[in-house]
Amino acid sequence: MKNLIVGQSGGPTSVINGSLAGVYEEAKKQGFDKVYGMLNGIEGLLQDRIIDLDEYFQDKKNLELLKRTPSSFLGSCRFKLGKVEEHEENYKKVFEVLEKHSIDSMIYIGGNDSMDTVESLSDYAIAKKKKQNFIGVPKTIDNDLPITDHCPGFGSACKYIATTLKEVICDNAVYGDTKKTVAIVEIMGRHAGWLTASAALVKDDTCCGVDAIYLPEVAFNIDNFVKEVEELLKKKSNIVIAVSEGIRTEDRGFVCELLDTNLQTDSFGHKELVGCADALGRILRDKLGVKARPITLSTLQRAAAHLASKTDLEEAIECGKMGAALAYKGESGKMVIMTREPGKKYKIKYEVFDDIHKIANVEKKIPLEWIDVENNNVKQELVDYLKPLIQGEVQPIYKDGIPQHITLK
Amino acid sequence: MKNLIVGQSGGPTSVINGSLAGVYEEAKKQGFDKVYGMLNGIEGLLQDRIIDLDEYFQDKKNLELLKRTPSSFLGSCRFKLGKVEEHEENYKKVFEVLEKHSIDSMIYIGGNDSMDTVESLSDYAIAKKKKQNFIGVPKTIDNDLPITDHCPGFGSACKYIATTLKEVICDNAVYGDTKKTVAIVEIMGRHAGWLTASAALVKDDTCCGVDAIYLPEVAFNIDNFVKEVEELLKKKSNIVIAVSEGIRTEDRGFVCELLDTNLQTDSFGHKELVGCADALGRILRDKLGVKARPITLSTLQRAAAHLASKTDLEEAIECGKMGAALAYKGESGKMVIMTREPGKKYKIKYEVFDDIHKIANVEKKIPLEWIDVENNNVKQELVDYLKPLIQGEVQPIYKDGIPQHITLK
Repeated sequence: MKNLIVGQSGGPTSVINGSLAGVYEEAKKQGFDKVYGMLNGIEGLLQDRIIDLDEYFQDKKNLELLKRTPSSFLGSCRFKLGKVEEHEENYKKVFEVLEKHSIDSMIYIGGNDSMDTVESLSDYAIAKKKKQNFIGVPKTIDNDLPITDHCPGFGSACKYIATTLKEVICDNAVYGDTKKTVAIVEIMGRHAGWLTASAALVKDDTCCGVDAIYLPEVAFNIDNFVKEVEELLKKKSNIVIAVSEGIRTEDRGFVCELLDTNLQTDSFGHKELVGCADALGRILRDKLGVKARPITLSTLQRAAAHLASKTDLEEAIECGKMGAALAYKGESGKMVIMTREPGKKYKIKYEVFDDIHKIANVEKKIPLEWIDVENNNVKQELVDYLKPLIQGEVQPIYKDGIPQHITLK
Repeated sequence: MKNLIVGQSGGPTSVINGSLAGVYEEAKKQGFDKVYGMLNGIEGLLQDRIIDLDEYFQDKKNLELLKRTPSSFLGSCRFKLGKVEEHEENYKKVFEVLEKHSIDSMIYIGGNDSMDTVESLSDYAIAKKKKQNFIGVPKTIDNDLPITDHCPGFGSACKYIATTLKEVICDNAVYGDTKKTVAIVEIMGRHAGWLTASAALVKDDTCCGVDAIYLPEVAFNIDNFVKEVEELLKKKSNIVIAVSEGIRTEDRGFVCELLDTNLQTDSFGHKELVGCADALGRILRDKLGVKARPITLSTLQRAAAHLASKTDLEEAIECGKMGAALAYKGESGKMVIMTREPGKKYKIKYEVFDDIHKIANVEKKIPLEWIDVENNNVKQELVDYLKPLIQGEVQPIYKDGIPQHITLK
């Protein structure tokens, strides 16, 4: 008799439930008896808020709905256990709950902060000679986890961003030369510009693509920005610009703060970056007298399951399956990673990374050699890296004209 | 030998090119020799900027792409001819260009302002005994044209809004009771709340729907709003609110102006309404100390062809076809309208409305008896009216993971 518990943590994605589906399917196949879900991640586990996933997913139809449901089916949290020396009560409580339900293994699907939790629990189990094992399954739209080639969740966000930008470019060009227009599209990514870089995927035979891409990896200069837009407007009337929410000026101040000093911080003390496109739009209107429309993709880019990438969803499921297999084997303190095989054809190998310490709390940024700083664009290497991740479509299951989801009873 | 010219005007939609495709197909079938397109509407016609649509659409594949391409393939304008007494030079120029190319009929696809153009040209032709005839084909995401049951373009925008809201509701609920969250989703509609009302379509067996809908038809009271959100937050932790960009306070001031006095006006002198959700978010943060995220759907809602409603696209095509048939018959000063047949099964009859004067420059708002003012919601009658319009999906033609479009060479 062997039981598993799985949790989801951090910001949601379009395919994080794909990983949950993969965990469930493979856990059952491997031979786990019970597969539990913790509600709202480790925070819910500490409160013994757990459910039996058989109640939902013995019905295969529900598993298909789960794969098409955005956000985290089990709910999420942004809770850190803290250091053992300071918060051992949290650790004791986790193991008390696990033991109460005879749980042998835990899988945590999440990003950097979640890998920190996996690491801490695994270390504690080893130190205290506990039998439970802990496995991490990667997830983040930001693609900022190191070691793994990319993260499940990222490809679908890229596909949404590229598709939406292509539609925005059509829309923005509608008045042609009769009216100069600038659309400034703000894309998520606090410190890493991966998502914003996906704007480069838009260009093809029938679409001119975006006219400039501003990434947080490169210091942003407002005077140069105004000059660059002015130059672009001399060549064409309708401009679309992709900007990361996290772009900063040379003195490292967030551009959005130029507009708005009333920023909220989330429970980790991260600043919420709102209004970067708004700020730039106002600057352009003031300085150039041009119609400048800010468009903020907001949570739509991480929740648009109706536009999920098939490649991304399949990878999310595979990562979940691999996690369940590792958990069954009794591995601990390890994370599933994806390695891209060399060669022209895109192929992913699922592997195990042993040293989770190297993953937790490290942010992977775009290598500078992949950025075309001079032209506010990205280089072909980055386009080649991104393109395979958005391939293929996942047809939603529609009911009454709207995609169907599955949610907690 | 009979020739036709077609133009597109006003704000773009996801399916306005469907009407263009319908016009082209039917015009050829009826026996028009040349089918020209005017670039950027009547403004382009005045400059003799016209193209031969055979160059693009003799290839059937391009016609399929056209039906899936958002925004106006021919470009648009927001230009009014003005009154004959004051601007007869415009009228003379239009007929000069039409005569130069031996054009007998003109179809204009657009909203209120465009129907004004059709009316004026038709009246002028009659007064001056010109042989050319002028037909209007309706289009507007706002659904504010009178007489017709609804407008092509509206259903697809509703489908996008409902789908996106459903995904936003999933996303916003991710932290469950561990964190109180309010998402305020701002939806287009300057004076009429039709689009915002489509938020009511989200509710189903697995989705609680949005928690409040604020329409421009009802005076908005900020103190009441804060109290209403406070009450909602006592019952559940995660709230999603749909607001029209055009909501106004009792003294008829736009809510967005509370925040931002630096509003632009477009070339018709319409104010650009930005920041209503931003303003309300700030108010909630200030008064209730709650995490309040503004989400502005912006142009995405009118450009998201990847989520077009099949019903809407088919109706757009049919309206275009009917327009071409009327044009061939020599009818003038008339608009195609859709009438909903009585009975439970949704069925549309395409008809001709003779008195275009009754359509131009009139805005149709939501009947007050369809609004549940007390509960900030809409009544079942409105849901029943909206639901058929979002049925069915149009599969985009993907290439490299992104929908393909067709654009001017």
